[in-house]
Amino acid sequence: MSMSSPTIELTKALISRPSVTPEDAGCQELMIEMLEAMGFVIERLPFEEVTNLWARRGTEGPLFCFAGHTDVVPTGPVEKWTHHPFEPTISEGYLYGRGAADMKGSIAAFMTALQRFIEHHPDHKGSIALLITSDEEGPFINGTTRVIDHLEARNEKINWCIVGEPSSTDKVGDIIKNGRRGSLSGKLRVNGIQGHVAYPHLVRNPIHEAAPALAELASTIWDEGNDFFPPTSFQISNIHAGTGATNVVPGSIEVDFNFRFSTEVTADELKERVRDLLDKHNLEWDIDWILSGNPFLTAEGDLVAAAQASIKAITGLETELSTSGGTSDGRFIAPTGAQVLELGPVNATIHQIDERVRVKDLDTLSDLYENIMARLLV
Amino acid sequence: MSMSSPTIELTKALISRPSVTPEDAGCQELMIEMLEAMGFVIERLPFEEVTNLWARRGTEGPLFCFAGHTDVVPTGPVEKWTHHPFEPTISEGYLYGRGAADMKGSIAAFMTALQRFIEHHPDHKGSIALLITSDEEGPFINGTTRVIDHLEARNEKINWCIVGEPSSTDKVGDIIKNGRRGSLSGKLRVNGIQGHVAYPHLVRNPIHEAAPALAELASTIWDEGNDFFPPTSFQISNIHAGTGATNVVPGSIEVDFNFRFSTEVTADELKERVRDLLDKHNLEWDIDWILSGNPFLTAEGDLVAAAQASIKAITGLETELSTSGGTSDGRFIAPTGAQVLELGPVNATIHQIDERVRVKDLDTLSDLYENIMARLLV
Repeated sequence: MSMSSPTIELTKALISRPSVTPEDAGCQELMIEMLEAMGFVIERLPFEEVTNLWARRGTEGPLFCFAGHTDVVPTGPVEKWTHHPFEPTISEGYLYGRGAADMKGSIAAFMTALQRFIEHHPDHKGSIALLITSDEEGPFINGTTRVIDHLEARNEKINWCIVGEPSSTDKVGDIIKNGRRGSLSGKLRVNGIQGHVAYPHLVRNPIHEAAPALAELASTIWDEGNDFFPPTSFQISNIHAGTGATNVVPGSIEVDFNFRFSTEVTADELKERVRDLLDKHNLEWDIDWILSGNPFLTAEGDLVAAAQASIKAITGLETELSTSGGTSDGRFIAPTGAQVLELGPVNATIHQIDERVRVKDLDTLSDLYENIMARLLV
Repeated sequence: MSMSSPTIELTKALISRPSVTPEDAGCQELMIEMLEAMGFVIERLPFEEVTNLWARRGTEGPLFCFAGHTDVVPTGPVEKWTHHPFEPTISEGYLYGRGAADMKGSIAAFMTALQRFIEHHPDHKGSIALLITSDEEGPFINGTTRVIDHLEARNEKINWCIVGEPSSTDKVGDIIKNGRRGSLSGKLRVNGIQGHVAYPHLVRNPIHEAAPALAELASTIWDEGNDFFPPTSFQISNIHAGTGATNVVPGSIEVDFNFRFSTEVTADELKERVRDLLDKHNLEWDIDWILSGNPFLTAEGDLVAAAQASIKAITGLETELSTSGGTSDGRFIAPTGAQVLELGPVNATIHQIDERVRVKDLDTLSDLYENIMARLLV
């Protein structure tokens, strides 16, 4: 079996550009050169320190879009890697390097799929676009969300969007993500009255007062989930109170928590239920809320159908729809009305030392992307 | 009204010696000079950096002892004091200075009471002693406890002991402490399994697991107290968990707690009840225990009777017996079998900026000490 192909070569070229967030390190310019050759109109959309690209071929609808990111997470200790993280290396059927799976392999597969598709179907239906950012792994303030704002301002609508996030678990295509849970965070402070442990009648211990409320929050069933979403989950990540002295009752306690929530509840409902619970426990509290993303879902439609059919045809797999895992930039695209799917390689090693991807999976992925386009645009 | 007296002058001389723990700053040598003139046999008992004094007049039993400390807590910001903390100043009937109330005023009152008593009763019954340390406000490792060990080793037993801690609340003599609660501290760690908040099925959140147990600990009634002790109290002083990241469930939580306990329970019983409660909640836990002191009580006897009678005679007050407040060096003396009482000035300003004591209270206190000795040793 050959250990090279246009997709592999392009992936290696991208990995060798050390584009740790918010750096792009020339990845998008490499893409632009290829896209211009394919007849795409290029828009460079830098916002602050973030490099973004909107490229479109065609002016008609419907608009099919590949979305992804050229940035990668930091490497961690380079000496722990078997191969240097920015020197792409093939060994025993795997391509090693930071970004190999998340998501420079997908970016390369987008590109080679486009090259073949446009060669065979230069007069395809509708339009094809790429939405690429260098800020998916970072604060995601100046990345995809800004590009979407830019498109919305001129009423440019994406109909179908494939995000190249590594969705697969064991085999490429075994799982596609047709939505993501919402993420709602809160920074809770409960106030009491500070004092000496020897004078308990003079204090109101905020740790004691908060404990039953935290226990109830932790054991509450927020919803049962549904066919597409697991039940909403609540997790406390940080809890701190105390002066350091072991004979002083502190005046307040601070608690960071996070909801990953399904489409069965809204962020506002969760906020109200938390507030009611804290009031029921007679706490003196305040919360700073951060809504990182509402849940989104592409339950059915021609994009899901095309992806399922292509995966079945090329890999033989009955793909599974899933909404598990972290958030993705799909949450910025779905609210525009687009059908959004995530389809990419196996995610077992992402963000880890020795991130890698099966070499043959990248060619399969390129074939899948091409096949999906053919079902929608021919 | 005169604003001076031998007790006031001696208190001022002691305050002007800046004896922040473990320093004695010459206080004990000043006392020794006076005690030798009264016929006391002096034993200087330095241990490590701590200055200790055992002085005894007479060789017979019973042995009456005044116990106290020459060290003081730090001043805090000197510029916040109305008068310099080590420059004793009388203003509007109060003597200001660090240690005025805790407890250089009591030390001075010991000395002047002894001078008058011995002048009038040079052939008093039994013996009189002073046990003085410069490490009551510090780690209390090389202070009173070491002197007691020294006495025990040669089987020298105190029968009656008055500790000069500021026991009074509004008027000198309104409260005497006839015991103290025990103090038992624990450093609890509950272990879980760390992970990402987005994958709740892969984590075991130690904050969630600990919360119901902490709520139960906080609401448990440990005992009802008794005639001399308030109910045993439990307070959490510090609680910490979290990596700082708001999307990571931490692997463990650490909780500092403290019991102030009555004579209705023992430290071992409290430990067992905490262990059983944590096990009932199926926690993976460990605890480091620190027993700072067992409770002690001088419920009745000739020392309590003498103190009550003297206070009634001199101040007109029906004094109240109390075991509230923090720990004191009495906890090291009571286990030898001694009757132990704490009687000293009003404690409203101890350890604070502008610590002060009513000038006339110190003379009253000296009279009380003299009167108690007369009831026991004449």
